[in-house]
Amino acid sequence: MTSFADRLAERVAARSSQIVLGLDPDPTKLWPSALAAAPAEGDPAERAATAVAAHCTALIDAAGEACVAVKPQLACFERLGALGWAALESVTRHAHEAGLLVIADGKRGDIDVTARAYGQAQFGPVDTPFGELPGLQADAITANPLMGRDTLEPLLAAARAAAGGVFVLVRTSNPGAADIEDVRMSDGAPLWERLAAMVADEGLIGEHGLADVGAVCGATHPEHLERLRDLMPRAPFLLPGVGAQGGRVEDLLPAFAPGPAGGLIAASRSIAAAHEQVGGEPADAARAAAESLRAAAWALV
Amino acid sequence: MTSFADRLAERVAARSSQIVLGLDPDPTKLWPSALAAAPAEGDPAERAATAVAAHCTALIDAAGEACVAVKPQLACFERLGALGWAALESVTRHAHEAGLLVIADGKRGDIDVTARAYGQAQFGPVDTPFGELPGLQADAITANPLMGRDTLEPLLAAARAAAGGVFVLVRTSNPGAADIEDVRMSDGAPLWERLAAMVADEGLIGEHGLADVGAVCGATHPEHLERLRDLMPRAPFLLPGVGAQGGRVEDLLPAFAPGPAGGLIAASRSIAAAHEQVGGEPADAARAAAESLRAAAWALV
Repeated sequence: MTSFADRLAERVAARSSQIVLGLDPDPTKLWPSALAAAPAEGDPAERAATAVAAHCTALIDAAGEACVAVKPQLACFERLGALGWAALESVTRHAHEAGLLVIADGKRGDIDVTARAYGQAQFGPVDTPFGELPGLQADAITANPLMGRDTLEPLLAAARAAAGGVFVLVRTSNPGAADIEDVRMSDGAPLWERLAAMVADEGLIGEHGLADVGAVCGATHPEHLERLRDLMPRAPFLLPGVGAQGGRVEDLLPAFAPGPAGGLIAASRSIAAAHEQVGGEPADAARAAAESLRAAAWALV
Repeated sequence: MTSFADRLAERVAARSSQIVLGLDPDPTKLWPSALAAAPAEGDPAERAATAVAAHCTALIDAAGEACVAVKPQLACFERLGALGWAALESVTRHAHEAGLLVIADGKRGDIDVTARAYGQAQFGPVDTPFGELPGLQADAITANPLMGRDTLEPLLAAARAAAGGVFVLVRTSNPGAADIEDVRMSDGAPLWERLAAMVADEGLIGEHGLADVGAVCGATHPEHLERLRDLMPRAPFLLPGVGAQGGRVEDLLPAFAPGPAGGLIAASRSIAAAHEQVGGEPADAARAAAESLRAAAWALV
């Protein structure tokens, strides 16, 4: 079985893309075509979940060709309840059919027995007396390391059994990241260096020189990227924060040191809401924005 | 509208209980009555989700009277997919009907726009063009503070709008908590003191002297409890780790300093699997275990 690290490297090369299409559907900001896809009447949850799934499907159809993966934001589906989770499952299938990897963005983290349950939920299989269930069948997940190594390892075990990967929060893109992630430790280094060391320790290196444990590193603080790359020479970086949050592609060069798949650029609003900036049909604007981002990133490596 | 802090204090007093019944259903370890409640054939996910809901319902019926709240572990429902989320919704309703508060244990944490979506998912309401959706209607949630204050505040805003509460991870019960939570900062204090300070800052004090922002503090390290109480004099503590993980009720006294609702003792396996230790019917053993734990804790305050 090819490891996630190698699957990722091969997929990036085959698609000439490091772009990760964020799927953060807000029911109040869906594309008109998605709203039109909802049943004309009936249960609001069913109508909303249908529209959310249609929005994500249309976004994948429009912008997916310029991308290597999608990143569904689990919160956005959970808020619609059980039907939202069903929409997440259907969007995951659609992304796989389009040749895209699926990075389930839930930032989970919990004690061992619970981490195993999250691993089952995301990667499957789930053992039951009635037969095995598939789980979400994600290719990778995001994970929160605050509770320590014994909470990451069950997630990683579930990932590896499914040739999947885990992206661990290291230094995030939000202003509040300074509160805890940047806390100075007794040796003067910020806490995120400890998180980075854990990521580097846990990863297994594949044939393409990339590890199967990655790091979430905000693109809003490029001054950290060289140090992060020193600490995690082989980890793929998942880089949110380009576009709406202010990060710039040209500042991300250190991420690509281990190869073209070393930096995955996550973009959501700058693609899904591109028509608000440039006008025209949402799908056309999304396709153009994704392709433009793809070309800018690919030119760096 | 009565705040979560006051609702909690009043509920603890009315039920003479600080016990939080953990709902961590494992499809391979369900009570026989729950397995019998599943359809005899058909979709494995539907059969598993029916059995999981029946297990939790039976556990609430057996042990709920000795408790003040239930704590569904979201991972255990998510692994069953959309039908698992539906089971979570039905178990939440059943707990409310039994007079119990519901603490949704998902340890969520993400950037502002996503944290707002998690807040909607847990507390509702969710605005959609098709009408408002209710969300899960939890009374409180657990939250992960690694990404900083700006990721907690939207959760707290959603909670407060629903008279709900947030329990923030501060010093957890697992061995790996030492890896990050115990990291020494430049002033020599462990990182969890910084997390505790954030909890103390964010809480609003209710009429009963308790705050609406609580802390998850493992019962496995009672030597930290006095210091945690100094740092967070008004926060309710959610205390996992009694029983299966080795924590002892009699060591938890500092938690109760702000009043009987200052310490909430979370117990899962020691109640749901009590029959494995003492024999007899699972429901009878669970009822006795919960009542024994309730009496032991109540005797402390």
